Amino acid sequence: MIEDKNQQRTALSQLGEFGLIDHLSKNFDAKQKSTIKTIGDDAAVLEFEDKRVVVTTDFLVEGVHFDLSYMPLKHLGYKAVVVNLSDVYAMHAEATQITVSIAVSNRFPLEAIEELYAGIQTACKQYNIDLVGGDTTSSTSGLIISVTAIGQVKKGDEVYRSGAKPNDLLIVTGDLGGAYLGLQVLEREKEVFKVNPNSQPDLDAYTYIIERQLKPEARKDIIKLLKDLDVKPTSMIDISDGLSSEILHLCKHSKVGCDLYENKIPLDPQVISTCEEFDIDSTTVALNGGEDYELLMTVSQEDFPKIKANPNLTVIGFITEENAGAHLVTRAEQKIKLTAQGWTSFKKD
Amino acid sequence: MIEDKNQQRTALSQLGEFGLIDHLSKNFDAKQKSTIKTIGDDAAVLEFEDKRVVVTTDFLVEGVHFDLSYMPLKHLGYKAVVVNLSDVYAMHAEATQITVSIAVSNRFPLEAIEELYAGIQTACKQYNIDLVGGDTTSSTSGLIISVTAIGQVKKGDEVYRSGAKPNDLLIVTGDLGGAYLGLQVLEREKEVFKVNPNSQPDLDAYTYIIERQLKPEARKDIIKLLKDLDVKPTSMIDISDGLSSEILHLCKHSKVGCDLYENKIPLDPQVISTCEEFDIDSTTVALNGGEDYELLMTVSQEDFPKIKANPNLTVIGFITEENAGAHLVTRAEQKIKLTAQGWTSFKKD
Repeated sequence: MIEDKNQQRTALSQLGEFGLIDHLSKNFDAKQKSTIKTIGDDAAVLEFEDKRVVVTTDFLVEGVHFDLSYMPLKHLGYKAVVVNLSDVYAMHAEATQITVSIAVSNRFPLEAIEELYAGIQTACKQYNIDLVGGDTTSSTSGLIISVTAIGQVKKGDEVYRSGAKPNDLLIVTGDLGGAYLGLQVLEREKEVFKVNPNSQPDLDAYTYIIERQLKPEARKDIIKLLKDLDVKPTSMIDISDGLSSEILHLCKHSKVGCDLYENKIPLDPQVISTCEEFDIDSTTVALNGGEDYELLMTVSQEDFPKIKANPNLTVIGFITEENAGAHLVTRAEQKIKLTAQGWTSFKKD
Repeated sequence: MIEDKNQQRTALSQLGEFGLIDHLSKNFDAKQKSTIKTIGDDAAVLEFEDKRVVVTTDFLVEGVHFDLSYMPLKHLGYKAVVVNLSDVYAMHAEATQITVSIAVSNRFPLEAIEELYAGIQTACKQYNIDLVGGDTTSSTSGLIISVTAIGQVKKGDEVYRSGAKPNDLLIVTGDLGGAYLGLQVLEREKEVFKVNPNSQPDLDAYTYIIERQLKPEARKDIIKLLKDLDVKPTSMIDISDGLSSEILHLCKHSKVGCDLYENKIPLDPQVISTCEEFDIDSTTVALNGGEDYELLMTVSQEDFPKIKANPNLTVIGFITEENAGAHLVTRAEQKIKLTAQGWTSFKKD
């Protein structure tokens, strides 16, 4: 599906490990005040003064988390960074640095790895973060990316999963289900392509949801918005595995229950139309789809006036006592127990 | 060679991703004062007050960095941590936290991953560091481990590769070449085992060098020793790729040359005897072997009285002007240009 426009192929073995690191990192400048020493020594040196430091890490494995037959490497590099930054923002922190390690088989030429790093660089610019370290090595099969993201937060300003209280409002940013549906469209096109490699897919009707899958964004803007609105959430988590799973995490860590209103779940029109086309329920997609990288938070009722007019924040329910349990209130006003189908990379054989 | 004593096999899919993280991290307590929030949220939260933060990361890939036919998983877990801590100590910093991510194929039962984490836990106890995060996911083939290590250092106390000055003493800790030779012995025994699976190898003569390969230690003790001696190195690097390669890194970053004395390179008697047995030159092994995880540093001549009596620190040469180049002075008093054969994971096809 994705044409290889870059015909040049330089074997990785021509550069060796040090040559590769030097080559890939040469376009990355350190801009953060907290970056004292970036790539080039045994470790990076950072300085956060009186701030607390937030650290998170994620793996992306070819064949498990991404499929290079429809995921351009540049997008993959971008996404690998974004999914980690999302975890930093979910702590109510500012992302400042990343390290990126890759294990890559010899089937990838240097030009492919350059594409990947071009995407990483674009993300670094977009989110104003420094690449300060990493490792490049060979793998026996495929491409594996490990990103560690570092952020800073004023002492006491961090927001955990555990702070939700009964009567707090349950709020989600943006809209849900798009990334999952984008993946369904891409998978369908891949099957079509297998049968007829000359087919020219018309993906105009799916632009938004495909972008949600291939080029997700982390909600850095929301952290700034919350500051501007002078709202500190009582708990927060990013939505990587589907709304349902994340709500249950919040409830478990906070020892609370919740009522989630089906008719409040924000859906893009393209999500609704594509659900109709695929004949799947849009609520199921929003609850279990995953990879939207929106933020799910709880906010004290007192703060409702500050947030109610904001198009970025949708109230989708409220927190209840723990013994009330976690429920979805359907459009038909039925109460259904929330369950996490979520996404797990360990499939049964 | 290594008998599988653990007959129980629980499929990873029985636990799923969250179950696996919970299960693996339940034995890890946070002990560092700087660990505010450990595993269980979107990110860990750390607090270093007025200290600078040091961050380093490394990949270990099955079939590239380790061979499970002679590397017990517990040792592998230990080693994966140690090689990263070594980079922290090489900054003259104190290691405080790690994150560990693993990608693992379904051929590994839960019990194998538990063994791996038992080794990680042993390293955490030994070096007094906290496991504060990570990711577990499936891989399409084999086991891949990514460790990020975090440390702290008093502002200005960090030591870079770039601070060596002409006339500084070139110093190495411990002895060199053991880890490489240990690997040669293990590789030889593997070949013997392939031919005759009932052979019982007698490895008594190689205990030290096999331990150097399978259970290396990072020189945390040296950072304390330097403090006790009131010596701050002018530059420092850890020896992961062989003495030669690391000396050249120091020289390049510091813009200096050096004279390294062959007859000063510290070698364990077992290294010398095994080199004789394998008919390889012990200097070549020390220069290019790698994986010893000793520290290479430069120290001002003024500090010589403080270090001269210490058995942990061997003066192996001195720093010269850049235009003099980096040389090995042989036992025959010949000067040979130092070259890095080093170790690269990107082999030519």
